[in-house]
Amino acid sequence: MKKFTSVSDVENLQEIIQKALQIKENPLSETQKGKGKTIGLVFLNSSLRTRLSSQIAAQNLGLNVLTLNAAQEAWNLEFADGAVMNGDTVEHIKDAIEVLNQYCDIIAVRCFAGMKSKEDDVNESILSQFLQHAKVPVISLESATRHPLQSLADCITITENWKKEHKPKVVLTWAPHIKPIAHAVGNSFAEWMQEMDVELVIANPEGYDLDKNFTKDVKVIHNQDEALKDADFIYVKNWSSFDDYAAMPEVKENWMLTNEKLANTNQAKVMHCLPVRRNVELSDEVMDGENSIIYQQAKNRIFSAQAVFSEILDELNS
Amino acid sequence: MKKFTSVSDVENLQEIIQKALQIKENPLSETQKGKGKTIGLVFLNSSLRTRLSSQIAAQNLGLNVLTLNAAQEAWNLEFADGAVMNGDTVEHIKDAIEVLNQYCDIIAVRCFAGMKSKEDDVNESILSQFLQHAKVPVISLESATRHPLQSLADCITITENWKKEHKPKVVLTWAPHIKPIAHAVGNSFAEWMQEMDVELVIANPEGYDLDKNFTKDVKVIHNQDEALKDADFIYVKNWSSFDDYAAMPEVKENWMLTNEKLANTNQAKVMHCLPVRRNVELSDEVMDGENSIIYQQAKNRIFSAQAVFSEILDELNS
Amino acid sequence: MKKFTSVSDVENLQEIIQKALQIKENPLSETQKGKGKTIGLVFLNSSLRTRLSSQIAAQNLGLNVLTLNAAQEAWNLEFADGAVMNGDTVEHIKDAIEVLNQYCDIIAVRCFAGMKSKEDDVNESILSQFLQHAKVPVISLESATRHPLQSLADCITITENWKKEHKPKVVLTWAPHIKPIAHAVGNSFAEWMQEMDVELVIANPEGYDLDKNFTKDVKVIHNQDEALKDADFIYVKNWSSFDDYAAMPEVKENWMLTNEKLANTNQAKVMHCLPVRRNVELSDEVMDGENSIIYQQAKNRIFSAQAVFSEILDELNS
Repeated sequence: MKKFTSVSDVENLQEIIQKALQIKENPLSETQKGKGKTIGLVFLNSSLRTRLSSQIAAQNLGLNVLTLNAAQEAWNLEFADGAVMNGDTVEHIKDAIEVLNQYCDIIAVRCFAGMKSKEDDVNESILSQFLQHAKVPVISLESATRHPLQSLADCITITENWKKEHKPKVVLTWAPHIKPIAHAVGNSFAEWMQEMDVELVIANPEGYDLDKNFTKDVKVIHNQDEALKDADFIYVKNWSSFDDYAAMPEVKENWMLTNEKLANTNQAKVMHCLPVRRNVELSDEVMDGENSIIYQQAKNRIFSAQAVFSEILDELNS
Repeated sequence: MKKFTSVSDVENLQEIIQKALQIKENPLSETQKGKGKTIGLVFLNSSLRTRLSSQIAAQNLGLNVLTLNAAQEAWNLEFADGAVMNGDTVEHIKDAIEVLNQYCDIIAVRCFAGMKSKEDDVNESILSQFLQHAKVPVISLESATRHPLQSLADCITITENWKKEHKPKVVLTWAPHIKPIAHAVGNSFAEWMQEMDVELVIANPEGYDLDKNFTKDVKVIHNQDEALKDADFIYVKNWSSFDDYAAMPEVKENWMLTNEKLANTNQAKVMHCLPVRRNVELSDEVMDGENSIIYQQAKNRIFSAQAVFSEILDELNS
Repeated sequence: MKKFTSVSDVENLQEIIQKALQIKENPLSETQKGKGKTIGLVFLNSSLRTRLSSQIAAQNLGLNVLTLNAAQEAWNLEFADGAVMNGDTVEHIKDAIEVLNQYCDIIAVRCFAGMKSKEDDVNESILSQFLQHAKVPVISLESATRHPLQSLADCITITENWKKEHKPKVVLTWAPHIKPIAHAVGNSFAEWMQEMDVELVIANPEGYDLDKNFTKDVKVIHNQDEALKDADFIYVKNWSSFDDYAAMPEVKENWMLTNEKLANTNQAKVMHCLPVRRNVELSDEVMDGENSIIYQQAKNRIFSAQAVFSEILDELNS
């Protein structure tokens, strides 16, 4: 694996899921693999799970870890090509990347959507600079349009929780929120589920359809009750409008996931990438109920990251 | 030791003090004990000594260390049970804790008193959530009402500095400050000294008596000169009113510790947990004088933490 | 080496350059040297290269690393001797240093010029406290008047890029900026180049002469074109006025380094310590052109730091 920014960087999804599950069985089986090598974890945004799970995964592989909270610890970054830097920005992102090239064997970066310019976000204005200028493998810790380490953890979690022969019905359902949230987790989950042996349905209110480039032919239903019927897995996530970018068209129905809605499903397991706004996106009773596999999902972030780092190291060591 | 949040978690105080002193002699005697295990150091508040000494102690034991500055690096936390999270808070503390359960073998947390609601602080509204939701041992890096790693370091320091047969007279004396300060260090020192073979006296102005649940039958004197007479150890610390919670009743006398006041003692050793406001809580001449054992006390924070982490690891490894 | 805050702490410059180049060949040749020892990296200011290169260097030597973002993670520091600390400051720098003495075998600190009081900056009001109170070796990660780890990296980089017999002509040229910048890099480069076998010329507009204590007898030319003629190396850096401290006297000519200006040189290699304001200090075409050795210079920060840490460890281990 030469980089990891979307499902298309994965040669064989089932293989990497199995690898991650083996790592989960024995996380310290490759403690020498990363010895003498350095991974830089660059955060342009907040992080709890990604920050900690990436550090654990790297340590399990013997990698040195450099963590950089870019905005707080280093310099205010310029992203515009050709900018005359006579304003607030102190260092151009491409210079920061070129320096990271000198210091790191792997660069991992978190760069959320700005939610201001649709064009910038759709074009991955920041991640694209990493991909362009990095001379070492780049790993996305969530970018403007995708959150692939999360999606791989989601695949691992579904695999662990489905032992039946037939395809599970997986429903990605929109949930309420109080401010415009990015599409990365929704897009990414849609994309990865299309590579899994599942029946995927997306439920969201009118005006909230995700970018067709990610959802492709997946069935989109604007009625949550109808979508949830017989669901085996429910993935709860908010996102703002994509068409009317970052807008929040009014939603009259209550889309918060509750136990009442769960009753309508095939005892569906409930998933969420966290952080979650309790009693807004889903109710306390769901979050704390026995159908939730949300913390297991969080734990699998370690093995998702470790499987990816391990495959990247295979490439570097080859 | 299953957790460490107060002196009542210590089975045998003299034993752990001796263990800490042995560690001080040879800090690298147990470098394999924590191998493959991870301690999460979660800071909801500022920290210098606790942050650094905990990292050193953990590294000396071979533990992996994850440090999280929760507010700056992760998400704005909600603490209220049952909250409808439609405001500024992004992640519920109990979800953050459940995730830490997945990532850490030990969770250590600093969660100061908010100094706004007496009830919240007295009930340890944050630490109690860690104790309730954590599935791994919890270590307090200072909570609303106690600072046990500091108190253990204080016990170690007094032990090192007292070789006589009779009990030393230890005076915990209030000191001036410019804003309302929490009671944790005062409470905790009072509590731990009651388990030590010392004669404890507390000196504070009227209106500043500490919570009786901590001081119990310890003699409280409202006249500093009287209290300091023949002291062998003086512990300097400010706190605000407990009764009129977080208020700062006027104090007419000057309670700042000076060399003049020291002259009245049995060449008392001076202690302070740091940070200290020079020339407010105590004078430069005391801080920089030969009676101060304050930096030694700071150093002992390493061995206090290491002894505790080591006992927690004994439990985990058993 | 007992400390490292200026070129005068280096016994033999050529020797340490050669040592750094050997380390670059084999960075992991001394992984046991720092085992069981701790370096504290204290940042009072932002840092990217220094932060990461110091961590890598320390890890390569087997040192434990404690990183402290003092202002954000610990306490607001007081710097004035004898201060009555009844204001915003919570901990005196000398107490913080005394505590670092207890925790670290080496203290490295970044403390920029405040650019408010010439006297404070010239007297290194912060670094001087570290030198006064530290009981362990002190390493400057850039102070008010010097940036010695950068300058050593600059010497390494020039050595790598000059194989001819005759002395290279090295021009330190002032560059435009939008706000008052400190003199540390300029001073330091001037000082170190005087110890190298080069012909140093400084070019800056009238009113921008550096402190004579650093530039001594080096030729200062107020005409950039004249200075750049036949240059072999050009070091680009802004600084504000030293005489009229921190002022920015008007400059009518355009001092931004461009390809047009490079044409006038002996195919000069271009250097900059980074971060650089593109199209203000130098043009994109220079930054991205083949004459730039700026990223190589950034990489050499690792070996500069590692050579220094290694010599400091020799002293500690002796």
